[in-house]
Parts: sequence; structure tokens; C-alpha cells
Amino acid sequence: MSVTAAQGFTAAGIAAGIKENGNPDLALVVNEGPRLAAAGVFTSNRVKAAPVLWSEQVLRGGRVSAVVLNSGGANACTGPAGFQDTHATAEAVAGALGQSAGEVAVCSTGLIGVRLPMDKLLPGVAKAAAELSAHGGEKAAIAIKTTDTVHKTAVHEGEGWTVGGMAKGAGMLAPGLATMLVVLTTDADLDSAALDEALRAATRTTFDRADSDGCMSTNDTVLLLASGASGVTPAAESFTAAVEEVCADLARQLIRDAEGASKDIKIEVINAATEDDAVEVGRSIARNNLLKCAIHGEDPNWGRVLSAIGTTSAAFEPDRLNVAINGVWVCKSGSVGEDRELVDMRYREVHITADLAAGTETATIWTNDLTAEYVHENSAYSS
Amino acid sequence: MSVTAAQGFTAAGIAAGIKENGNPDLALVVNEGPRLAAAGVFTSNRVKAAPVLWSEQVLRGGRVSAVVLNSGGANACTGPAGFQDTHATAEAVAGALGQSAGEVAVCSTGLIGVRLPMDKLLPGVAKAAAELSAHGGEKAAIAIKTTDTVHKTAVHEGEGWTVGGMAKGAGMLAPGLATMLVVLTTDADLDSAALDEALRAATRTTFDRADSDGCMSTNDTVLLLASGASGVTPAAESFTAAVEEVCADLARQLIRDAEGASKDIKIEVINAATEDDAVEVGRSIARNNLLKCAIHGEDPNWGRVLSAIGTTSAAFEPDRLNVAINGVWVCKSGSVGEDRELVDMRYREVHITADLAAGTETATIWTNDLTAEYVHENSAYSS
Repeated sequence: MSVTAAQGFTAAGIAAGIKENGNPDLALVVNEGPRLAAAGVFTSNRVKAAPVLWSEQVLRGGRVSAVVLNSGGANACTGPAGFQDTHATAEAVAGALGQSAGEVAVCSTGLIGVRLPMDKLLPGVAKAAAELSAHGGEKAAIAIKTTDTVHKTAVHEGEGWTVGGMAKGAGMLAPGLATMLVVLTTDADLDSAALDEALRAATRTTFDRADSDGCMSTNDTVLLLASGASGVTPAAESFTAAVEEVCADLARQLIRDAEGASKDIKIEVINAATEDDAVEVGRSIARNNLLKCAIHGEDPNWGRVLSAIGTTSAAFEPDRLNVAINGVWVCKSGSVGEDRELVDMRYREVHITADLAAGTETATIWTNDLTAEYVHENSAYSS
Repeated sequence: MSVTAAQGFTAAGIAAGIKENGNPDLALVVNEGPRLAAAGVFTSNRVKAAPVLWSEQVLRGGRVSAVVLNSGGANACTGPAGFQDTHATAEAVAGALGQSAGEVAVCSTGLIGVRLPMDKLLPGVAKAAAELSAHGGEKAAIAIKTTDTVHKTAVHEGEGWTVGGMAKGAGMLAPGLATMLVVLTTDADLDSAALDEALRAATRTTFDRADSDGCMSTNDTVLLLASGASGVTPAAESFTAAVEEVCADLARQLIRDAEGASKDIKIEVINAATEDDAVEVGRSIARNNLLKCAIHGEDPNWGRVLSAIGTTSAAFEPDRLNVAINGVWVCKSGSVGEDRELVDMRYREVHITADLAAGTETATIWTNDLTAEYVHENSAYSS
């Protein structure tokens, strides 16, 4: 499954020794064609890792023959030398596969501000190239894990074509909790413009609306590669829907595996004047540490929701706001509503509905609670 | 000390029974004149508590004869009934003191979305009025505590005049961690316009730049009352400097007592193109949960600082950024700088310097680390 569910792709995942604990840390995904169309979206952080700067250039050409991904180091804030490391990695892949380095995308994830051990990474590229297989998707997905507790894959079967993918990290494209990397593949016969359109539509409502901890990564990358191997050209709507389904699935898996989280929180903003308003309000609620702590404590503290809404520039009147938590309208007309004791918060998934009473637009943002485990994991991360 | 350090003020702090644990929960500060000049700044949250809506109206007149403050309930998101409770509280104070309710400011702090127990609050007003004293400042400061572990007061002695004050909460004016309330008093002979100018200048660089957890309160209020009792009219610059000194002192006390914090983090942004850029970058760093966790773990994780800077719209080039942690330039030219092992993070205060290399402006933001204790305190708060 994973990136090799679609025809025309091979992949591998190996331990190159980048991670000191010997876990798998290098993945290779190769588009065997006949087509080499590709599209990508990248972090909007202005401090971009070397592989992001490189891959943005590669994607400008709309063709990707291979993607090499390493965990164990983000190669971010590593200066010109770090960029040379990325370039050398792409050259090594190109050399091993007999392709052009200008069509090799590179993704890295791990600690910021540390050079990659190229003496381990480059031999790893050769080793991964030797292990490429049409069944290698699962191993590739495993090799890109960092703090992930499980690897993440998803597949959609279309009529004669397939979209599959893998993801690592927990968070959002922009911002991102940890470094989020996603590679999607399809055997649909589509050009890079069609892929780009589908990918942007899909990420806008999925990865872009998963906000685990409000922190934007330097490395976030989502790539979509098409081999054309099925010979089928699906209709734009059904292809976009398929990509969106796979992205939504992977985004949910990222949230479910977010560092230290004990609750997955679905924030649905309804009756907004504009979709932008709905997204702004959803994000503001998703990033409120006090609310995230309250949800962790299974406390339906709707006052935190109103406080968060109040910091936005969205259209609303404070005395018309309504908030439901797990279906109970605990806040009505900006004031006390149904009995908060009615809210059942025992389950992992928590559903917050914020009714702005200002229009007809809606947006859904996913986030997590804030836990002592998150603090522990992130206070001990690089030491 | 506290609000009674300046001549012409009396205060009291009593237990009215609003808090179930019987701790002091009601404070009264009275301006005995001869002048009743006042200025105030309030939360910029659009969801404002009833006492904020009320006090904003009162302050428009530039005269405040008394301030009544309660802990044990924020009276926020309580609808028209909550506003009537605030009005009734002001009337009770006015009745007890023989003054006009339109000159009585009201402040509340505690849980959002809960009505105040007026059957306890109103008798408490009479009790507090009976205990008013020129030495009551300390008791008033104690009565406004919520999750504060210590009460906070500060005094500046001018030449023949005094500025004193008290504060509760831990966080910022806008945003605020918890409900932040501050009452400052002076016996300087100044009108409300002069007070307003000094107060805005002082809060802009003090309370507005303390960002404990990025959450903006519905109740934040800072009031400055002048009695004119000293008969001295200080020069504008020296008076503003005095108010700023008292505000800075109280703001530091708020940060030092922030919920669950183990580190006070001073973020100095230097060489910014504009002061706004410096503040935006400082706030972005201050609100980065991953960095706050890293500092908690005494990990000089400068990559988190760069990631946070990268999310702003400030003028900078990624490869010209420099970051020092406790004086060690761990990031130079956007890449690895001095050895991170040189950074000594054993002490409570941590100093981060972010050099944008884009101009000459500067700003300092204070924040705290993110700890398991913060999560614990805020996940158990209202349950």
C-alpha cells in the first residue's frame, strides 16, 4: 500500500545510520513512469530548510523522478553547507538511478541546526536504490518516522486508477507541529498542472486545517507524483476528491498520533460571514493553550472558547455567539446555556461547534489537547 | 504600600464568601481627594466581561471615586443579568460611600460564564466600606488573588509625590494569561488627560509586552487614580517614568508568579527595521510552545527561535539572523554558531536575544516556559 499502491512506483526504506538508535531513517520513492508529472506544496515559514529550498526549485519544472527522504535530521538552519548536502543527496540518487538530479526532490526531518552525517547518508542512498521494490511503500513509510509512534499510510482506489500516500509528523502544513512530510503517488494519467490544482484544493481543507500546536515547521512538504501507468485520466472532480480523501485520512492520522495528545479536538465553526472568518476563528480556538488544557482535564470550559473567538477580527456580535461541546449547547447568546454537566467528555474525540451567527460559511479545524506528556516530550527532545 | 502608599487613598480587603474556601475575595480602593482624576486601559478582547463594559463607561468621564474588585468570579459571558450585577455592585459602593455609581469602577476576576453570588457580594461591599483605612493597601492586594501564589505591590517615591499599585494575575494586558487586574494610585496633582497619557505610555512597554501564554483575557483592566493630595504637579516625563517603573515592577511580578512556570524568559529583539517588527517577532517567539518546552528542559534549542521568527512578516533575511541564549551566540548568520554546550541555563531567568540585522529598533517581551504544572493547573481549574 502506501506510495506503492499506485502502479508505476517503487520504494524502499532502510537504516542508513543517520539515527543513532539504528532505526530506519532513509526512504526512497521512485516514479517508474511512463509519466513523471508532479506537484508540491511547502511550508510557508520564511525560514526554510535546505531540502525545501531545493525541492521548491525541482517542483517548478513539474517533473519528479524520485523523492529521497531522511529522518534523523532536518537540515534546517545549516547555511550554504547544508544546501550543498541536499544537492549532494540529490546527485547521489540521480547517480544511482541514472536520472537527472534536477528531478530528484529531497525531504528531511529531525532536529534543526544540525548538519546531516553525509558519510552515512550517501552510502544509504545506494543501499536504498538497491532495495527498491513495488512493495516497498510500507518500509518507506516506516523510515520517515521521528517522534511518530506509528507510520501513516492511506489509499484511495478509483475506477482503474489509484491514489496512495504516506505521511510523518503530527501537525499542519503551515504551521506544523513537527516536521510534516507527505508523499502521495498516483497512476492516473495527469499532467503537473492538474496535479497541482488537485493538491492545492486538497491540502487547503486538510493539512492546512490540522493545527496540533500552532508551531510552523521549517521543513513541511507535501508531494504528489503521477506515473500515468494506469493509462486512465480521471475527471478533475473525482481525482481531486480522491486526493482530498487521502489527505484527510493522513491528516487525521497525524492528529491522532500528535506528541503527548490524549484528545483529538474537532473544531467546527459555523454560520461565519466568510470562510476566512471561519478558519481564523477555528485556528484561534485551536491554539488557545488554556482551552487545550481544559479539554485535557475533560472540562467543557466554553469561556475559553469565547475568549479565543474574541481575539479574532471575524464578523460576530459577542451576545449572539453559541458554543456546543459534544452536542451540548453550553453557551447560548454569549452567555450560560445548557448545563455543562450534560457534556460527556470521556472519549478521545471532542467536538466543539462555534456558531458565529454572522453568515452561512463554515470550516473545520482539527487540534489536540495540551498535556504534561507534550511538555515532557518537547523539553527532553534535543538534550 | 500598595494602593495606599500615595496620600489621599483608603483601601480594604475582606472575605465576602464569594470564594468557597473562605479566602479574601473583595477589595475596595477609595480616592479621598481632593481630586478624583483617573485613566484606564482595558483588554482588547472583543468578548469583554460585564465589569469591563461598565468601567470603560465610567472612565470615559475621567473621574473615579472608588474601585471595587472581586476575585472568585469573572462575571464574563453572563449576559444582561451579569451586567446588572456589575451595576448593582457599583450602586452598593456608591450607597456605602455617599457617592455616584457613575464614578465607581468595577473589576472582577475568576471563572468565566458563572454569575456572581450577589447575596454574598453586596453585604461584602458594606463590610469592606466599614474597614477602609489608609493602611489597607496590602489587604486589598491580597483580596484580589486568584491562582496567584503571592500578592503583588509596587511603589515609586517621587519628589513630594508617590505612585503605588497592586496587581493580580499572571500574563499580559492583551492577551492575558489569567484575568489581570491592576490598580495604581498617585497623590500627584494631575488631570485625567495627563494620567491617560502616562498610563498608555507605561502599559505599552510593560504589561503589553508580558506574554505568559498568549491567551487574552476578557477582564484585563489597569486603572490609575490620582487624588492630588500631595499638591505637587510633577513634570510629565518624570511622572510617566514613575508609572512605567511601577508597571514594569508589577509586570515582572506577574511573570515571576505565572501558573506553573519554572523559567522567566526575557526576549530581546534587536536591530529590527521597526519597533512593530521587533514586537511581532518577540511575541511570536514568546508564544512558541515548542520553544517554551525546550527552555523548560534547559535546552538552548535555537532552531525553535528561528522557526518562530520565520512565521512573522517582519523585515529580515533568514541567512542574516543571529540568536544568543544567555549571552552565547548559538546561531550566527541563520546557521550554527557558538557551541550550545556553553549555554548555562541553570537559573530561573533566561535571556534570548534575536538579532534581525535589519535596522536599529528594539523591543523586549517577557514570557515563561511551558510546564507540566501549567497543564495540571489549567486542566483542573474549573472542575
